Amino acid sequence: MAHKVAVFRKEHFNAAHRLYNKGWTDAQNDAVFGLCNNPNYHGHNYELIVKLVGEPDPATGYVIDLKVLSDIVKEEVIARFDHKNLNLDTVEFAELNPTAENIVKVIHDLLRPRIDSKLELTVRLYETERNFVEYPA
Amino acid sequence: MAHKVAVFRKEHFNAAHRLYNKGWTDAQNDAVFGLCNNPNYHGHNYELIVKLVGEPDPATGYVIDLKVLSDIVKEEVIARFDHKNLNLDTVEFAELNPTAENIVKVIHDLLRPRIDSKLELTVRLYETERNFVEYPA
Amino acid sequence: MAHKVAVFRKEHFNAAHRLYNKGWTDAQNDAVFGLCNNPNYHGHNYELIVKLVGEPDPATGYVIDLKVLSDIVKEEVIARFDHKNLNLDTVEFAELNPTAENIVKVIHDLLRPRIDSKLELTVRLYETERNFVEYPA
Amino acid sequence: MAHKVAVFRKEHFNAAHRLYNKGWTDAQNDAVFGLCNNPNYHGHNYELIVKLVGEPDPATGYVIDLKVLSDIVKEEVIARFDHKNLNLDTVEFAELNPTAENIVKVIHDLLRPRIDSKLELTVRLYETERNFVEYPA
Amino acid sequence: MAHKVAVFRKEHFNAAHRLYNKGWTDAQNDAVFGLCNNPNYHGHNYELIVKLVGEPDPATGYVIDLKVLSDIVKEEVIARFDHKNLNLDTVEFAELNPTAENIVKVIHDLLRPRIDSKLELTVRLYETERNFVEYPA
Amino acid sequence: MAHKVAVFRKEHFNAAHRLYNKGWTDAQNDAVFGLCNNPNYHGHNYELIVKLVGEPDPATGYVIDLKVLSDIVKEEVIARFDHKNLNLDTVEFAELNPTAENIVKVIHDLLRPRIDSKLELTVRLYETERNFVEYPA
Repeated sequence: MAHKVAVFRKEHFNAAHRLYNKGWTDAQNDAVFGLCNNPNYHGHNYELIVKLVGEPDPATGYVIDLKVLSDIVKEEVIARFDHKNLNLDTVEFAELNPTAENIVKVIHDLLRPRIDSKLELTVRLYETERNFVEYPA
Repeated sequence: MAHKVAVFRKEHFNAAHRLYNKGWTDAQNDAVFGLCNNPNYHGHNYELIVKLVGEPDPATGYVIDLKVLSDIVKEEVIARFDHKNLNLDTVEFAELNPTAENIVKVIHDLLRPRIDSKLELTVRLYETERNFVEYPA
Repeated sequence: MAHKVAVFRKEHFNAAHRLYNKGWTDAQNDAVFGLCNNPNYHGHNYELIVKLVGEPDPATGYVIDLKVLSDIVKEEVIARFDHKNLNLDTVEFAELNPTAENIVKVIHDLLRPRIDSKLELTVRLYETERNFVEYPA
Repeated sequence: MAHKVAVFRKEHFNAAHRLYNKGWTDAQNDAVFGLCNNPNYHGHNYELIVKLVGEPDPATGYVIDLKVLSDIVKEEVIARFDHKNLNLDTVEFAELNPTAENIVKVIHDLLRPRIDSKLELTVRLYETERNFVEYPA
Repeated sequence: MAHKVAVFRKEHFNAAHRLYNKGWTDAQNDAVFGLCNNPNYHGHNYELIVKLVGEPDPATGYVIDLKVLSDIVKEEVIARFDHKNLNLDTVEFAELNPTAENIVKVIHDLLRPRIDSKLELTVRLYETERNFVEYPA
Repeated sequence: MAHKVAVFRKEHFNAAHRLYNKGWTDAQNDAVFGLCNNPNYHGHNYELIVKLVGEPDPATGYVIDLKVLSDIVKEEVIARFDHKNLNLDTVEFAELNPTAENIVKVIHDLLRPRIDSKLELTVRLYETERNFVEYPA
């Protein structure tokens, strides 16, 4: 009889970013984004938790080999964003404000095609220990 | 197309409390609450995680500015309970036993009117690293 | 009016294990399980989080006395698996591959009869800080 | 040939306390101790790390059996301070202000006679994750 | 009789930086600093632990009021470096490579004049959970 | 003018072990090592912190490139002990009881020849979050 288990893998990357709306004035951006609107950028150690839900394979006892999942995350996320300036060095955030909410959805959408469609995918992203997000909610 | 993201903010406060039922005898309270029924109180470092679920604003990329959320939590929760004796110094626990289960619901109910009704609200409270609660479940 | 709260209790145990499928060749097991297939075993510090959901008792303010829950976990899980070789010393994993997915379901099924049927039960198991599982999902 | 190794054991207790100088006016105490001078007390989850330095016994490979050290800490510190009001329930802080600095020295002095004099003893005490102390320094 | 106690206060800031030697070629900088030499910068959540050693004041039981220490760190360190680009926004790292080793010494030297000369000062800086430094050693 | 900075790098490995003295009877080993003497082994997630003290190179701002230090630890320690049975799979613990005290000294002695002799080396090893050791002390 089938039963579903959630499996989780934690990874991390370090990046610089700046929060602002290109269509707004400097005053508007300062009012909304404050210190996060520093035009010279600031940065974070991002912690990422990828969650998959599915039925364990009876032959292996695995929902997925977490080494395989780790490799997918490294290829799609870490190689793309680690030690990068999200605004300047990535196509994903060239026009999209790199808030935690937007980053976590971009990461989800990068991973989704690489994960078996039978598995549900949720991504949690820690911008700091005190501020974090999850998608989908 | 709309999509929902969860955002989380962590805060903390330190408080004293005593667990007991005023309608019970000392022997009943000792039997049920043990050391937690010390009439001179004991205390905890409470860690609080507030979770909101909603659609990011396309103009900002925020579900809510977490600085705004932090300020609401500080006004409604931290100012009320930090460095307090929950039994003696608060109206909320004058008649209500300050178990983690009751505290987390009180905190939820204090925050709910301050948060946009379009956003779902969940509160997690750590009494210790090993004992914690969440409401609603 | 009734309302549901989740309560959580964290416990830990240390154990040795080996991942392999007895019906496979050594080459197949090496290909799938790699280092985890060491015939001399390796080991982990397992962290366990038990979650129960129910209505707090109005007389106590408790969903369950977490001391009682801790004692149940110690009797059913810690006494059985702590400082053990999961493959050699337990009946549960004599024929079942002790992956995190299988361990978390075994722990759930050991605890379920000991917990009031009105309470929902979920178990999370950390094999390492970076690899963890939850059941049911 | 002898060589020295440090061994560490972590324990915890929860307690209420109030910081004030009995010889001062209320205004003086408020000015110096602020919220920590709440006459109804507040509280903390204290984390304690006991460090011993000595030569491992060649027969066992132990500086000390950490189970033995844990039992000593439980007898001398946890049984005395856990779920207590430090000001009201203990002889140690009946006249001594229970600052982290004073608590850590009291704990050291309680443990010192129970530890082999050949072993150096240092105690670290976390009042919160952000405020902690160590003695001797 | 006097006795010395160490007190610790933890703070944090987020910043962007780039590691390189202005006197070197790009090839030399890439060979030595790799990803950390990204000309568009990357960033970190820096955790800072400030340690002071001294004798507790018998009247207060404090080596220093940790609220006062926290305010000094906020004025000298957090206000200067939080949400900044260390290379572009600070005079301290305009010519000095912002490695963790150099940042921790700069922070020490900023704090030293603000701390009573009777107190020993040590600063620990976490660039990530896995890479950290301390000065003086 | 030269100044010394400490740099730290954290790594981890998972291993099985059994604590016992080959020259003792089973009864003696049970009396001293208890559950740790399980003849079928148990295991741990070991966390390792390697500390080096030296003067930063003025050209790089590094005491050592922590990527280089990480590679040395991976070659000398992780490749040797990760996913191994310390008693059965290693020459280091074929005759030496793998207590944390003995493991940390073995790791130190493996790393020492690979580290520049101008740098002081200290190793901390966490067997669990609550039991850990450091060498030299």
